[in-house]
Amino acid sequence: MSDNGLRAVSERVLALHAQMTLDEKLAQLVGYWVDQGDEVVAPMAGEMITSTRYEDATANGIGHLTRVYGTRPVDPVARAEWLWGEQRRLREQTRLGIPAIVHEECLTGLAAWKAATFPTPLAWGAAFDPELTEQLGAAIGRSMAELGIHQGLAPVLDVIMDPRWGRVDECISEDPYVVGTIGTAYVKGLQSAGVHATLKHFAGYSASQAGRNHAPVHMGRRRLQDVMLPPFEMAVRDGGVRSVMNSYAEIDGVPVASSPELLTALLRDEWGFDGTVVADYFSVAFLHALHGVAADLGEAALLALRAGIDIELPTGDAFVEPLRSLLDSSAQGRADVDRAVLRVLSQKEELGLLDEDFSSPPTQVELDGPELRDLARRTAEESVVLLGNDGVLPLAAPRSIALIGPNADAAESLMGCYSFANHVLAHHPGTPLGFEIPTVAESLRAEFRDADIVLERGCDVEGDDERGIEAAARAAADAEVAVVVVGDRAGLFGRGTVGEGNDVDDLELPGVQRRLVEAVVATGTPTVVVIVSGRPYAIGWMLDGRTAAAAVLQAFFPGEEGGPAIARIVSGAAEPSGRLPVSLPRSAGAQPYTYLHPRLGGPTDITSADNTPARPFGFGLTYTSFTREDLTASDAATDGTITAQVRLSNVGDRAGTDVVQLYARDVVGSVTRPVAQLLAYQRVSLAPGESATVTFSVPTSRLAFTGRDGRRIVEPGAVDLWVGGSCAERDTETRIELVGPVHAMTADAPRMATAAVAALVPDPR
Amino acid sequence: MSDNGLRAVSERVLALHAQMTLDEKLAQLVGYWVDQGDEVVAPMAGEMITSTRYEDATANGIGHLTRVYGTRPVDPVARAEWLWGEQRRLREQTRLGIPAIVHEECLTGLAAWKAATFPTPLAWGAAFDPELTEQLGAAIGRSMAELGIHQGLAPVLDVIMDPRWGRVDECISEDPYVVGTIGTAYVKGLQSAGVHATLKHFAGYSASQAGRNHAPVHMGRRRLQDVMLPPFEMAVRDGGVRSVMNSYAEIDGVPVASSPELLTALLRDEWGFDGTVVADYFSVAFLHALHGVAADLGEAALLALRAGIDIELPTGDAFVEPLRSLLDSSAQGRADVDRAVLRVLSQKEELGLLDEDFSSPPTQVELDGPELRDLARRTAEESVVLLGNDGVLPLAAPRSIALIGPNADAAESLMGCYSFANHVLAHHPGTPLGFEIPTVAESLRAEFRDADIVLERGCDVEGDDERGIEAAARAAADAEVAVVVVGDRAGLFGRGTVGEGNDVDDLELPGVQRRLVEAVVATGTPTVVVIVSGRPYAIGWMLDGRTAAAAVLQAFFPGEEGGPAIARIVSGAAEPSGRLPVSLPRSAGAQPYTYLHPRLGGPTDITSADNTPARPFGFGLTYTSFTREDLTASDAATDGTITAQVRLSNVGDRAGTDVVQLYARDVVGSVTRPVAQLLAYQRVSLAPGESATVTFSVPTSRLAFTGRDGRRIVEPGAVDLWVGGSCAERDTETRIELVGPVHAMTADAPRMATAAVAALVPDPR
Repeated sequence: MSDNGLRAVSERVLALHAQMTLDEKLAQLVGYWVDQGDEVVAPMAGEMITSTRYEDATANGIGHLTRVYGTRPVDPVARAEWLWGEQRRLREQTRLGIPAIVHEECLTGLAAWKAATFPTPLAWGAAFDPELTEQLGAAIGRSMAELGIHQGLAPVLDVIMDPRWGRVDECISEDPYVVGTIGTAYVKGLQSAGVHATLKHFAGYSASQAGRNHAPVHMGRRRLQDVMLPPFEMAVRDGGVRSVMNSYAEIDGVPVASSPELLTALLRDEWGFDGTVVADYFSVAFLHALHGVAADLGEAALLALRAGIDIELPTGDAFVEPLRSLLDSSAQGRADVDRAVLRVLSQKEELGLLDEDFSSPPTQVELDGPELRDLARRTAEESVVLLGNDGVLPLAAPRSIALIGPNADAAESLMGCYSFANHVLAHHPGTPLGFEIPTVAESLRAEFRDADIVLERGCDVEGDDERGIEAAARAAADAEVAVVVVGDRAGLFGRGTVGEGNDVDDLELPGVQRRLVEAVVATGTPTVVVIVSGRPYAIGWMLDGRTAAAAVLQAFFPGEEGGPAIARIVSGAAEPSGRLPVSLPRSAGAQPYTYLHPRLGGPTDITSADNTPARPFGFGLTYTSFTREDLTASDAATDGTITAQVRLSNVGDRAGTDVVQLYARDVVGSVTRPVAQLLAYQRVSLAPGESATVTFSVPTSRLAFTGRDGRRIVEPGAVDLWVGGSCAERDTETRIELVGPVHAMTADAPRMATAAVAALVPDPR
Repeated sequence: MSDNGLRAVSERVLALHAQMTLDEKLAQLVGYWVDQGDEVVAPMAGEMITSTRYEDATANGIGHLTRVYGTRPVDPVARAEWLWGEQRRLREQTRLGIPAIVHEECLTGLAAWKAATFPTPLAWGAAFDPELTEQLGAAIGRSMAELGIHQGLAPVLDVIMDPRWGRVDECISEDPYVVGTIGTAYVKGLQSAGVHATLKHFAGYSASQAGRNHAPVHMGRRRLQDVMLPPFEMAVRDGGVRSVMNSYAEIDGVPVASSPELLTALLRDEWGFDGTVVADYFSVAFLHALHGVAADLGEAALLALRAGIDIELPTGDAFVEPLRSLLDSSAQGRADVDRAVLRVLSQKEELGLLDEDFSSPPTQVELDGPELRDLARRTAEESVVLLGNDGVLPLAAPRSIALIGPNADAAESLMGCYSFANHVLAHHPGTPLGFEIPTVAESLRAEFRDADIVLERGCDVEGDDERGIEAAARAAADAEVAVVVVGDRAGLFGRGTVGEGNDVDDLELPGVQRRLVEAVVATGTPTVVVIVSGRPYAIGWMLDGRTAAAAVLQAFFPGEEGGPAIARIVSGAAEPSGRLPVSLPRSAGAQPYTYLHPRLGGPTDITSADNTPARPFGFGLTYTSFTREDLTASDAATDGTITAQVRLSNVGDRAGTDVVQLYARDVVGSVTRPVAQLLAYQRVSLAPGESATVTFSVPTSRLAFTGRDGRRIVEPGAVDLWVGGSCAERDTETRIELVGPVHAMTADAPRMATAAVAALVPDPR
């Protein structure tokens, strides 16, 4: 890297930059939101957007085209033709002929009409399968590349800190290592198609006070470094991500959009990131309008540029007019503009944009073909978590099923907040979704062709209308088994029950759905509850005690193949293999909570409150039984590798998949250390009676933390290791010693983020 | 100060120290808990206490005698005679003849049998009357001094951050300035009697995750410095406090008991504190047993000493045997021991202990005399907050009153968790409390002699027994007016509904009390609800809408004269004048919350959650009406004084008291600033029709904050000022400019903590 935080800039880019007027430079630093209209697709969008005519905004070129496909349901091929024409126009009719970077949302698949909708990231977390997520990312990337999209605004690497927050369904896990491994896999996949991934939201966003969107984040440097940042570091250093988006958050009073410490000193100088930093939508303006750290938009622009934001999105409300008027008197500002322009031009060069002639728009695209369908189904199947089962599941050819609940026959219930389908439903009702999305009801009918299936909605997801509950209970009473499908409806800013802006202060199931489930369970008919949701809810009451259901399945928005995936697991055609990527909360009043906590008071006399979740991180049942035995591990140098072996056996009579979870506890540390920390994990499928030995090679850097003096270190001393079915279960355990001096980790040292390697050796039968 | 953090040590102390053996030194650094037994009076006490015979523990002298009066109900005069004898024994029968410091709890009055029980600190906060709190502290101090007690373990200066926490009733307010002014007043009062006050709990304790006692504190340096620490700084620098107790908390991974940054660099080197730092009970051992930052008790002792803890309390489990064995190999440890011993000896010298002969124990003491009774009643009366009133209050000579609720006739409901009376009730049932405590029922009967008063308990404070509710509702239906007294029962660690260890994840009234209130309100009889509690509850439902009561009074554990105080306010013999020292929460799921927040999203499309409390900080009604008009203030230099004037008028037809509240908002800051900050306040009583002009002189340092570079600064720029009936009401407002350069505050500069000065000039009538 050169001194200005850029990797070597090419002669070509330098020459291009040398010719640019100030207006041409500023134009490269902003986006234009095509067809944005007044739809609610970003916080305060209605208040923040000022309209500039497209022709005016692009007269000097343009940095990004914002959401060309993702704002309205337009035919992708037709839109591509328009886009290719626009790129040619930029190439031919602006003075410097620089095409635009086209960016788009792609969290649950490309956010475009007729494109596949995959499971939400929380489902990727539940699948604990980075390889599959990488395939998912690659498939999404190929669709985007076909349509001339260069940059995708995913993945979200915010570590879940509070399920009250509405954006939990966009996140992968409450464990930084799971977020890091799966998020990095997505990055590698997407970028393998030549599409730049964008890490969201760097950093701290998910830890806002009381789970309120945009509320202040209270966190010290150690927690930030040890819990929130590792996934980002991993995706930068191991994943080679090409773009990063700032977080809306303010951390301890400093908005990240104005933080050179995070956006430059850490991200670029320490981690070596040399891509572009894009602003989360309107976050530059928020420095003035929300955070009050800038007196006007021009000051906001100067602050953001200085901190390290290169491109203002979605439009150029601060980075064009308000900024320009301040640059005459700010040499620093002009230098910051130049630095950002060089980065943007370098990105365009790297993407091949400077050489492209845009002569051949696609004439046919396949955005939801069999390969994508298969990926969607596999991911959905792997992600469903069996939370409880008295033996009723898998259902053995029931004669009659009462299928109940607002999510039983609702395609929209299967899709996450950032899916385009969700957007269509909200803003273009009546428009076809553009792809097939079988409901749970349709899928169960296909799976249980001989059963008499009666459908009763019972109640809505939201609202207090209980009038349908009685009929639902009657249907349940008359059936051999009841399947109740409840949960969320994803949406934005007040529409729906989860999703961006939909924060809650109550973690009961929305509306009267608890009443519905209780009424059905009370009939005595064996009841399978399927929760299709974007956040974990406080459903301890349906797992334990008097109101327990016969079985409970948790599906985090499973996407277009979610219906068949759920039906196949209910029938036993597929095995449940998901694990909780987030603790199942005890209550809203017990938040925030993370399993990565130091020793808490309970159950001593320190607090009368129960500090345990309803189900722990990593929990999930199967239709078979696994034993985990004979964990062995030898001592390791503080800068070495821990090799741990454990024997896994399928001792049941069905095939099944376990997620082998290796946990650690640093017994004594110079700062407090968590009572459990996931060190490594591996999905393992075994036939009935089969055994295998799983060997984990874990760099000791996975046990690193921020020491008293702020340096990241690995300390010598005893470490407890165990393997179990969740963070709270120690099926087999051992203790090792880390030996040698305190290992101070530098940029060259093995990284905290480096993934553990697992090897699988089947035992001879 | 000398280099080792001591003020000049006298020749006498140095000479004494020079003679001491290591055992004699260690003995000075610990306490002995007389008669501690196995009662639950500290977290994990049962697990932590190891018994050492008194004779063995004191053979080489002893630093402190722990809770001589406060553990069991013993006659104070008899106990004093014993104590004087013990001090003589230490003087005459140990080699160096050094008496012990006797410390005792004194939060709601001296924790001793037959001593007065005053309102809980949250009530001091509600009274907004530092002068009265200073008188309270002085009265408590005189009682202590009479009994040979040298140090009191109060006040609690933790700023309230989360009402779920059980110890909220021990705290004063969620506003740091209110905590600082009232807490410092208590310190000055107590110390005016020659008794050393002890600041609890330095620092961070009240901000534990999810309000769980001892859970980790997540907070950055700025929030710690700008919100949590100012009350401590004020009590140290303005109040001259002589002792400080560490917090149990870990902040961002570092237990405070092991933090030289807080206990030495900040407290001593920066603030100039030269007294002693005592360990919160068992917190040295917790470094090993709970936090895991020490491998054993000896390491814990070395860490704590190094950090700056001088005395281990309540006993010497770590500082004697475990420590001694490590000192041979630790020159640093030996130096730390010497430093602590010099501090303890200096404190004993300062207290006059080295010269006392203990020849004259008291033969008669007055621990609950008329002066104390009067102080208790005045504080209670000033602290009751009128939250709602449709005109039913004050009650005009009702013919009949249905007096309902578990707190209506329960003396124990009036006392806070740290009162000795509470302790007697828990551990010595059947023992008389030792002083008079009229219940609300007895007091109302005395106040309404002509009314027919029917008493119905309705339900208990805890539990789900609803059987009494029907009879209560019938009684209400038959009466002219209903008075329902509900709320908390203070206790410790699972006994009671609030108090140390009694954390909650639900802020509804405990048990079925909401059902009781709703049933009474539903009768249509005008219903006055009186809440006697230790925390604010989510009672929006009884203030607004269909289930609103006719009037609601909030009394935070009002102490031995709480019954008469409530009765007098109900009758109008006294005027309600308390104001909420803490926001009334919307729900448990909306926590943590403080009114000192930057701009939040709502009610825009940023979050669907309501970010407002049920009633704001500072809120409270009166029986008359006040107007606040014509706020004026002139610009000030950044290192100067803001002089603000406002005219207050009593425009109603009754006398009344307003708490004039001056708020500020720094419009643009280099870091985010709160939307409202209390700058100054003043209780003002006015006759009907009377007006007065209140002048506040506010040092601009009250607007200081921790800047980007970590320095405390005052920035130039616009500041909005307003006066209103709460933080959320702007009855009259103005805007000023702070002018001049950024003012970097140093140790010599005007302090953030310096109190505003208010002057009151009655208008000519």
